[in-house]
Order: sequence, then C-alpha cells, then structure tokens
Amino acid sequence: MIVALAGGVGGAKLAHGLAMYLPPEEVTVVVNTADDFNLYGLRICPDLDTVMYTLAGVANPETGWGIAGDTFAALEMISRYGRSTWFRIGDRDLATHVIRTSMLTQGMTLTAVTGDLCGALGVRSRVLPMSDEFVSTVLDTNDGELEFQEYFVRRRHEPEVRGVSFRGIEVARPTDAVVSALHEAELVVFCPSNPIVSIGPILSVPGMRETLEACAAPKVAVSPIVGGRALRGPADRMLDSLGHGSSALGVARLYEGLVQGFVMDAEDAAYEPDVRVLGMRVLVADTVMRDDVDRRELARRTVELGRSLVESGIGAE
Amino acid sequence: MIVALAGGVGGAKLAHGLAMYLPPEEVTVVVNTADDFNLYGLRICPDLDTVMYTLAGVANPETGWGIAGDTFAALEMISRYGRSTWFRIGDRDLATHVIRTSMLTQGMTLTAVTGDLCGALGVRSRVLPMSDEFVSTVLDTNDGELEFQEYFVRRRHEPEVRGVSFRGIEVARPTDAVVSALHEAELVVFCPSNPIVSIGPILSVPGMRETLEACAAPKVAVSPIVGGRALRGPADRMLDSLGHGSSALGVARLYEGLVQGFVMDAEDAAYEPDVRVLGMRVLVADTVMRDDVDRRELARRTVELGRSLVESGIGAE
Repeated sequence: MIVALAGGVGGAKLAHGLAMYLPPEEVTVVVNTADDFNLYGLRICPDLDTVMYTLAGVANPETGWGIAGDTFAALEMISRYGRSTWFRIGDRDLATHVIRTSMLTQGMTLTAVTGDLCGALGVRSRVLPMSDEFVSTVLDTNDGELEFQEYFVRRRHEPEVRGVSFRGIEVARPTDAVVSALHEAELVVFCPSNPIVSIGPILSVPGMRETLEACAAPKVAVSPIVGGRALRGPADRMLDSLGHGSSALGVARLYEGLVQGFVMDAEDAAYEPDVRVLGMRVLVADTVMRDDVDRRELARRTVELGRSLVESGIGAE
Repeated sequence: MIVALAGGVGGAKLAHGLAMYLPPEEVTVVVNTADDFNLYGLRICPDLDTVMYTLAGVANPETGWGIAGDTFAALEMISRYGRSTWFRIGDRDLATHVIRTSMLTQGMTLTAVTGDLCGALGVRSRVLPMSDEFVSTVLDTNDGELEFQEYFVRRRHEPEVRGVSFRGIEVARPTDAVVSALHEAELVVFCPSNPIVSIGPILSVPGMRETLEACAAPKVAVSPIVGGRALRGPADRMLDSLGHGSSALGVARLYEGLVQGFVMDAEDAAYEPDVRVLGMRVLVADTVMRDDVDRRELARRTVELGRSLVESGIGAE
C-alpha cells in the first residue's frame, strides 16, 4: 500500500502515474482540502476534484482543472443572474459540486462523499481528504488578505505572498481513514505539489505530522520546482517571497526530517550534495510529466527509490 | 393593474399574452408553488420557472418547460453519479435552481428571490409565489400516495387521482405582495391552468379566498378544458376522477361564487347557458394559444370581458 500526499495538478499526475504503475487499489491519495470554498451555496473542493477527475481519466488535460470537453451553459446563466463567474465551473463539474453539497448537507462526511463520487466515476484508488473539517487557506499579500481561490484564480496568483495561514486548521484532525492508510503504508510519496499551500496544509493538520513520523514506511518527496521554476502555479514566487528560496533545495529543506528520499529534476542536479546533507537519498530524474508514459515512469522511479530505502533499512520497521 | 393566477404552461402563456397586450409593468402573476420540491438539495419551483422563462422570452416552446436550446451535460453527470434523473433539468435551468437555493439558504424569501431572478432576466411584470411557505401537493392515486412531480413527471400523470391534498398549506399565508397586488387589482384573471392542482392550491392558501372575495375587481376565469380535454397535462382525467366532470362547465362550477366572467372555447359553446346559470358572464372565444398572436388576442378578449363587467357595475367598488 502506497500513500501519496497531493494537491492539484502536479500531485494528481503523479498519483495517476502510481495508479498506472501499481495495482490502483494499492494507492491511497491524501488530498489537500484547504483550498475548498463555498460558491453559490455549493462546496467546491478543487484539489479533490482534480485528483478524482485525473484518476477517473476525465480530467481536462489542457486546463489542468475541470472535465475534458465540459461546457459552460450553466455558468453563462449564473452570469446572467448577476453573479461573478471568475471561478470557471463547467456543466459536468457543476454536477459534482451539486451532488457533493447535497450529500454533505445530509450529514455525510467529506471522506464518505468523496468515496461515493470516486466510486461512481470508476476510480479504483482511494482518494481521501486530509480531514473532514473545513479548512481554508488565507494569504497575506501585498494586496491585503486574500482567500486562496480569490488569490489563485481571480487574481491569477499575481500578488506577492508574505504569509500563509490555514483558517480552521486548529480544530481539524486527520481522518480515521487517513490515519489507518498511513499505518498500513509501505511508502509515502509527497507529490510534486506546492509545498506551501498544497502539501503544507496536509502537514499542518494537528496530529498529521506525528502520524507521519510514527509511520514506519520510508517517505519520498518529489520536487515541484524544476530549474528554479514551478511548472504551474505560484510555488516558485511563494517560496521566494516567504524566504525559502525557489529551488529544489528550498523544497527539500521544508521536508527536512520528514522524508528520507528526494526526487529532483536533472536540471537541478547541482543541488544533490546539499540535499544529501539534509539526510535524504537523492534521485535525479526527468520529473516533467508531459504524458501518461512520463507519469508512470516518474511513479516507477519514485517507488524504486522508496524500495531502495527499505532495502537499506531506512524507514523500515 | 391586472392580477393573473397561474400554474404552468397554459397559465404562463396567457400571462405572457397579458404582458404583451398591456404594459407589462401593469401585470402581476400570482403563481402556484405547491408543485415545488427539493432535488439534489436544490429548491425547484416548476410553475414559477415556467412563468418566469415564458415572460423572459427564453422558454422552450416545444417542451413547455425549461429553457429553449438548453443542454443536459450536468444531468448526464448527475446520472453518472447514480442519481435518478427523471426530472429533466437542463444546464441553464440548473443555474436557476442553484442561485435560487443559495439565496433561500441565505434567508431571502421566495418572493424576494423570484423578484431578483426575474429582474435579472428582464421580466417587467411582477411574478409572485402564492406564498413564501413550502407547500407540496400530494395525490392519492390508484397506485398509492404520490408527490406531485413523482406523479406528474416520473409516472407521466398516468395513475388515477382519487384525492388531492396540499401538505403544509395550513401554515401558508398569502404574502404581503400578493395581498397588496389583489388590493390594487382592477381585474383578476384565473388563467387556463389546472383548476385542481394549479389554481386549486392558490385558492387553498388560508386567507387567499377571503382576500379574493374582498377584492372589488371583477374576476374572470379562462377554461383550460377545450372540447372535454386538457390541452396538456391531466386536468381532464383529474376533473373526471374527482367527480367534477371534464368540461368547461366542470371548471366553471369549481369557480362558482368567485368569478363573474368565464371564457370558454368555441367548441364548448353548448355549455354557455349552464355557465350563465352559475352567475357568470360568458365569452366564447378561440382559447387555444398556438403562438404569440393567439396569446395576445386571448388576453385582449379576456381583459375586455373584465371591462364589460366593470361597465355593468359587476365587481366594481
């Protein structure tokens, strides 16, 4: 059993690679939910949806979010009703939010709802929200305090981020499903997602870090920074403005003490000695996932790094 | 100011005719909400929507419900999520239900929500729900007790109706907006809607009948039964199975004491003497509304019948 910690697009791609390389039932993806928000009375879980749609094979490969071939008739009508529509919800995607919200309103947990939706879409891996409590990322920027989607989508992640907080995280807990998945894990993969606002919230759920530390399996992180830049999104600028440095090394430092293996892109090979010093075995690989073959190959190499750690007695019980 | 009492398609057509013949601002439509229901956590108000879409010029003329040219991508996805989809919600229509539900959840009344949605769609007449309380029509049929949409859509109104009740009606009240519209009315038109399950619930709201009786304006009903048959829906079979008789006369008897004028189709001219005996002035006209010209013409003739009643001092203050 492999547990992958993931945010949106990059995390979903590697999770998909893992589910292709391994029997998909042996993969559990623990997903960031701190960018969840409510819009038009509906609960929207962007990262959960990206992971679910990607694993279901219905994700839109061009946008990185939403469903391939989706249409926007409902959103046009919502706009006609005078509501702002900067968050682009397709018609099929809207169905997800409607059904999710109705199940949550009936008292189901987000974990149960996600299991139901994933099952309906034929996803054979387990997709688990990091917690069932509602957490929201708030960014302190040079343009004031911004909710995550406000910053990320509406403002196209242009403002400079000076601080990050996760509202509601103090009462969040890792779910039983997450705890038992980590308990059974033979390998934990930190996917190439934004370490600050995707993996960061997962690690910030009270009790999650302790659960990870108590988990005997080796842990391997894959850098989302390639050649100093994020492939998508604001991770590079965020790492810089928060003082971590926009590099594979900056990412590795954030995971120091938590992971024993680190996968970085060939472009970043110069950082290898510095990352080793942090106590990590380093794999230099091509980490850019252009297609399914790339996803599966990066998954394979990441899993093999994990196996090599086990063989060396690192992270083994 | 003219007040029209309306249910779905037939009522919406005449209301539209009135809004074409008269300045639309002078028309208020009081709409049945007893066929409202909740689906996927959303509040759906079929008659309000039919009236709103018709007055906005976006109604689907072929189906009688929904929006012209609407697509069904969300509904396909909802079906994929294992939910039953016998109630056909288009993508644009879904937007209406989502926005309405979010406003209701925020504490707005259905009257205020309907005003907001109609305003956004450019409807210049007032569209008012009969009450702000949730009422639901339940039918006692040869197949057991059925909720209205279950009977009407899912079972294609095939079961025989033996009794009708309006759950929740005892705590419903005519809204202030309805009461003051009736207070100012110069003419009240009972549109050619099902007298049992469309006009019936409106008249059954406690206080509505008294408000209508206290209203000095003449009242004119238009028969939805032509040649013994309903143009759409189950009004004819319902009138029969409930013992009223499926004829213009059967309809007129249900409105005895409430209306002073009655519009029946030329096909039903033979009933004219019997309806006169009920104390109604009768107009025999072509009541089938095939197009906008028909709608406007039936509206014109109905309004003129009302004016003739005023001139005769009937229903005048």
